[in-house]
Amino acid sequence: MAFPAAVDEYLTGRCARWIGELGEFLAIPSISALSAHRADMERAAAWLAGRLRAAGLEEVRVDPLPDGHPVVRGGWHHLPGAPTLLLYGHYDVQPVDPESAWTTPPFTPTVRDGAIYARGASDDKGQVLMQVLAVEAWLRTVGRLPLNVEFLVEGEEEIGSPHLGAYIAAHQAELAADAAVISDTPMYAPGVPALCYGLRGLCNLEVEVRGPAQDLHSGVYGGAVANPAHALAAILAGLHDAAGRVTVPGFYDGVVPLSPAEREEWARLPFSEAGFLAETGAPDLFGEAGYTTLERIWGRPTLEVNGLWSGFTGEGRKTIIPARARAKLSCRLVPDQDPGQVLAAVADAIRAACPPGVEVEVLPGEADPAILLPREHPAVLAARRAVAALWDREPAFIRMGGSIPVVDTFQRNLGLPSVLLGFALPDEHFHAPDEHFHLDNFLRGARTLARLWQEYGDSR
Amino acid sequence: MAFPAAVDEYLTGRCARWIGELGEFLAIPSISALSAHRADMERAAAWLAGRLRAAGLEEVRVDPLPDGHPVVRGGWHHLPGAPTLLLYGHYDVQPVDPESAWTTPPFTPTVRDGAIYARGASDDKGQVLMQVLAVEAWLRTVGRLPLNVEFLVEGEEEIGSPHLGAYIAAHQAELAADAAVISDTPMYAPGVPALCYGLRGLCNLEVEVRGPAQDLHSGVYGGAVANPAHALAAILAGLHDAAGRVTVPGFYDGVVPLSPAEREEWARLPFSEAGFLAETGAPDLFGEAGYTTLERIWGRPTLEVNGLWSGFTGEGRKTIIPARARAKLSCRLVPDQDPGQVLAAVADAIRAACPPGVEVEVLPGEADPAILLPREHPAVLAARRAVAALWDREPAFIRMGGSIPVVDTFQRNLGLPSVLLGFALPDEHFHAPDEHFHLDNFLRGARTLARLWQEYGDSR
Repeated sequence: MAFPAAVDEYLTGRCARWIGELGEFLAIPSISALSAHRADMERAAAWLAGRLRAAGLEEVRVDPLPDGHPVVRGGWHHLPGAPTLLLYGHYDVQPVDPESAWTTPPFTPTVRDGAIYARGASDDKGQVLMQVLAVEAWLRTVGRLPLNVEFLVEGEEEIGSPHLGAYIAAHQAELAADAAVISDTPMYAPGVPALCYGLRGLCNLEVEVRGPAQDLHSGVYGGAVANPAHALAAILAGLHDAAGRVTVPGFYDGVVPLSPAEREEWARLPFSEAGFLAETGAPDLFGEAGYTTLERIWGRPTLEVNGLWSGFTGEGRKTIIPARARAKLSCRLVPDQDPGQVLAAVADAIRAACPPGVEVEVLPGEADPAILLPREHPAVLAARRAVAALWDREPAFIRMGGSIPVVDTFQRNLGLPSVLLGFALPDEHFHAPDEHFHLDNFLRGARTLARLWQEYGDSR
Repeated sequence: MAFPAAVDEYLTGRCARWIGELGEFLAIPSISALSAHRADMERAAAWLAGRLRAAGLEEVRVDPLPDGHPVVRGGWHHLPGAPTLLLYGHYDVQPVDPESAWTTPPFTPTVRDGAIYARGASDDKGQVLMQVLAVEAWLRTVGRLPLNVEFLVEGEEEIGSPHLGAYIAAHQAELAADAAVISDTPMYAPGVPALCYGLRGLCNLEVEVRGPAQDLHSGVYGGAVANPAHALAAILAGLHDAAGRVTVPGFYDGVVPLSPAEREEWARLPFSEAGFLAETGAPDLFGEAGYTTLERIWGRPTLEVNGLWSGFTGEGRKTIIPARARAKLSCRLVPDQDPGQVLAAVADAIRAACPPGVEVEVLPGEADPAILLPREHPAVLAARRAVAALWDREPAFIRMGGSIPVVDTFQRNLGLPSVLLGFALPDEHFHAPDEHFHLDNFLRGARTLARLWQEYGDSR
């Protein structure tokens, strides 16, 4: 059927109201990482549940999690035979420090230059609200949705979703769906919506090199005892070659090479090396030889030192041989690296590189695989058509260098592909002071999602 | 003349009194590093000045230093034609933390197992008092000294003597002497007094590697930007080869090779590798190939990382590319390395090793040369005879791996050789909890110094 004009008009005709509502949601300081905000978490969950009910959703509820922040749920399931979408988002936000760096207070939402400024504006309250508005527009105009939906909005995304896996396992039947739609990613660029079909995986480890029992006087002992900081430097320096390639034996095992077609597709995306460099503030770009910048961050695995410490780091000098030296490392992984095998290979390489006179211990952390999502799934094709209808262009098919663990959980535990379609812009300061969300993308995003519901519903 | 028995008897017959006085001196918490102890510094200086007067010294005074801790002075100059000794020590002490690790409170001097326990017992209040008692024994028995002496006792040794150089320059004439005697070093081992004739020099620098303008998300940017922590590790790892030798071009320029005779002399000293290893608590000893442990710490230069830090070092993980990585480095130097040239060579090597994509800055610090003292100076020969008379053995001639900058100041600015003759034991916990000083060495040390005065006075 033709897309009902009333749905679109419902959304475009009430933009002042939507912005006011987004402001209410953003004014609640739902910082999941800080226990002082526990009551705010409950307020934010309650606000959202109320908004789902007002949108016409049914069986809306707030599920408390023991030792965690509640999950907000709600659904509409009146079209047997039509597909079902699981709509995921999160209502928790990052901490705000340094608060002094905000132009306006982080929980006093302020509109300027066409954007709303507040913590959580684009990550992810604004994007969650887009989904709710799209549903409401259908229910309040046509009186029904073109498919079935189930909302799952969590409050622990910014702290690593420690309880979500267990929650999903316990509610598997209720969450059964054909695909998930997640609006928690950016567009590729202004005016260029993106469907993200690949995410890198992640594994972490910590290394400790131990030498003397305590810090030693470098005059009394220096020259006769191995220095753990030297040993750690040697171990870490040996993990890459001068061309930026990881030297760990087996590290690249399983890496699916980028296809010529994919490389060509990425090469056609508008990309400014100068703009990217300016974003980083680094003196220059640097990476694995033979790959472009986009290929390096989207399609190649990395091994990074995230932190490093040893000995005396205060002001002035203290001439010691440190007792210990430590480093935190993480690897970004690509398909089809096995995260456990990568962790083991890195740990083995570190142990093998330990020089005489010191001992090394490797403490492995979590390991999550990279993900490649289908590009030809009917839900993805529906998203593509919805974007084309609203943005006068095809979405960019992109990968991302970061990780969204819930995508793996949906795929592995519920057998669901995810459609990653978000409308934030890459420079909207997620996790940083002056986070904001452009209101034109907020409104056009809601319209795009309303269209997606129909395109996918019609496809079956 | 024969050594007057009365001098020796004066010292041995009053040991309870000397221990009581040492306790008074030690009870004053004269911690030069902590401004809260400024009044204690003045009390300690006043106590010492009073003790010098009581010993019969003349023109005793406390010289205040602007922005510093006072210098205590006093002298006896009634033998024109006889040599003059400059007697140096310090009345300030190290901080006491961790205070909870002390068996008895650091400023409640306590005698147990033949030693007095308190901060400053061996470093250096006990050793300063030995000098005072040796002078008093002569003046109260014979009525005169066998030579002239001038005391210079500072209150800033533990904070690097920031004002002593200027003080010495301003009082050069008053401090004119033939040699300095410094009792601020340990014996080689129990029962083995030592004359220290060599000290390593020291130079410091700090290295900063800069990459992105701020910490970057390792998912969004990882692979396309050089990581400053990797760059620092590579730079530091390149400063030594696997055999423990410093690879900096020019680093060993000027190093005077150890002579076969000196190596043979050191090899004859009682030395336990197992005991040394146990002191360090390290898994194994390690150092430059081709040298023994004593040679490595006394006679070979080193380059050590004293501290290292970059990125996220808190609990848990934070997957970032750090904006910066820093290290503190220091070199222990041997004769005749030029400290300024070594600093420049290390800085050049670091700059030359900077990999692409980051910038490196080197911040050079102080640089003090190594020192070799004459072994045949009449004051040294007198010390040798005094030790032989009191300890039934020749002193060990040793070098030390640490630095005592005042020795260089005396040599350079006053043209004075120093006799380094101290009676602490190497394991008396200087700078650590439970610092102590063995009372038999305290008393025999005072007698040895009283004998030294005569041996040197007689030599001219």
